[in-house]
Amino acid sequence: MRVAVDALGGDNAPGEVILGALEAAADGIDVTLFGPRGLDTHGLPLVETTEVIAMADKPAEAVRAKPDSSLVACVRAVADGAADAAVSAGNTGAMLAAGLLHMRRLPGVLRPAIAVPIPARQGPSVLVDAGANADARPEHLVQFAHMGSVFSEELLNVHRPEVRLLSIGEEDEKGNQLTIETHRLLREDDRLNFAGNAESRDLLRGIADVVVADGFTGNIALKLLEGTIAELLAELRQEIGATPMGKLGGLLIRPAARRLRKRLDPDTYGGAYLLGLRGLAVIAHGNSGRTAVANAIRLAARGAEHRVVERLAERLPERVRV
Amino acid sequence: MRVAVDALGGDNAPGEVILGALEAAADGIDVTLFGPRGLDTHGLPLVETTEVIAMADKPAEAVRAKPDSSLVACVRAVADGAADAAVSAGNTGAMLAAGLLHMRRLPGVLRPAIAVPIPARQGPSVLVDAGANADARPEHLVQFAHMGSVFSEELLNVHRPEVRLLSIGEEDEKGNQLTIETHRLLREDDRLNFAGNAESRDLLRGIADVVVADGFTGNIALKLLEGTIAELLAELRQEIGATPMGKLGGLLIRPAARRLRKRLDPDTYGGAYLLGLRGLAVIAHGNSGRTAVANAIRLAARGAEHRVVERLAERLPERVRV
Repeated sequence: MRVAVDALGGDNAPGEVILGALEAAADGIDVTLFGPRGLDTHGLPLVETTEVIAMADKPAEAVRAKPDSSLVACVRAVADGAADAAVSAGNTGAMLAAGLLHMRRLPGVLRPAIAVPIPARQGPSVLVDAGANADARPEHLVQFAHMGSVFSEELLNVHRPEVRLLSIGEEDEKGNQLTIETHRLLREDDRLNFAGNAESRDLLRGIADVVVADGFTGNIALKLLEGTIAELLAELRQEIGATPMGKLGGLLIRPAARRLRKRLDPDTYGGAYLLGLRGLAVIAHGNSGRTAVANAIRLAARGAEHRVVERLAERLPERVRV
Repeated sequence: MRVAVDALGGDNAPGEVILGALEAAADGIDVTLFGPRGLDTHGLPLVETTEVIAMADKPAEAVRAKPDSSLVACVRAVADGAADAAVSAGNTGAMLAAGLLHMRRLPGVLRPAIAVPIPARQGPSVLVDAGANADARPEHLVQFAHMGSVFSEELLNVHRPEVRLLSIGEEDEKGNQLTIETHRLLREDDRLNFAGNAESRDLLRGIADVVVADGFTGNIALKLLEGTIAELLAELRQEIGATPMGKLGGLLIRPAARRLRKRLDPDTYGGAYLLGLRGLAVIAHGNSGRTAVANAIRLAARGAEHRVVERLAERLPERVRV
């Protein structure tokens, strides 16, 4: 699988991106870096680009104003058939805008969405939308449910994935106008295995194979989950370090804490898929280190191998009649 | 301070509610229980009621259909001047509906809101609205900012509390239609100490004295925070218990873990204020045990002592011109 990687995306670019790309290439993935002339890629192929999109750039403007940026060039490589998937740890909005402009939407798709696997105790839950659409309508959320189901079936090998709608109560009528109307549409759609609403308190324990939300709510939930895990472990470390007995105990539980942290670390998952486009794009965390970048590239290669875009294209037009 | 307590509210009623009420009464708070004739209150005064509102009852309907329920009777006692504050661990929606019907809104208040202190590392943050208004408009959120500021000033002794809007990016223009418009209004309101947007990832670390959200987003955030803390500590316990060395370490870090858990336990905070009404109402968690009930009663007494309703009444009409 040929993966195009934005060497200038993210807080730790280009250093950690190149090291992550090398790690993925060592697995046999055909990685090409996109970045400025003269970049030391440690022998990986380089497509030279002349522009950079910054994290703070306005997405749509930046994508149009900087057509030869490393991010846009990666996405175009997929659109042109030169690569099977694009990966960037850069500006998420720009990745979405570049995808819409150059890859374009799959037929029938109203809005692309970001799908992220949440490392729940009962097995991964796919959260869609994790932030592509800050404002969404009920019919968009129904499509997110279908996209998440395809992701869960094709990449996580789940048979008839259970779908739940993230809301503020398990009862059907609990929620805001958006979720109440979405609930009704999901309930009526017998092509989905819809099991009702789910509450956010159970997200880390595991509430469903696919968790559906608008992009604002999904993004709030994802960042709160990640931030709370990191903060709680930091606070625990601090409390443990406050006494000699605690310090000794801390040494003894270190392997256990490490196992848990590894399972919960977003870097282990590596990235999020942008679904609903005619090409495959993976977005890594802005603060990705080499491991996270390598995992995002593996995720992209895996999605290409499993032909996720083709599966969505085959199934969405028949499934999405809203 | 005279606090009216719904003896039949919550999953552990009446047993734990009565024990919690006794604990608060031992502090010198004048507690009256509301519940059925013959209830063993261990000597606390009882106002006899004949009906019960269940957790699953539809709030507005239940409040009208069961005027002599323990929950409604508590709220009415405050409205009639027989008590200074009402406490229930029962149906939150019913508490809100009873408050609107019997206490009524303060002049100028568009929507009451639920204010919850979040135990952030940098000191408590008041989250408003934590769930009273699933659908809200920008002008409602501006009022929530004012209510949260009064809470923070009067009850947490914060001078010029910093207010932030919960959104999906720190930049001014990041968010959905609701937060973008709300941001503009908050920015223009020079009676508030508004510091911009905040991201959910930092909620537990501490992002502001007052965190403003619509009730849907606020409720998702609060439950996700609580659920993630509980789940993560449970998973850590499980990992630690998986090896003999881990078990020994677990014993040694127990005091540290207990300190942390105590600080983060919602029961330590006890409850949430329903703000914007002409009387004081405190809602405790549905699963409250005796300690949580006692703390909710203490919170109610404290709010009455600090004359929170009077302060809101004095300050909201001049402050809320939206």
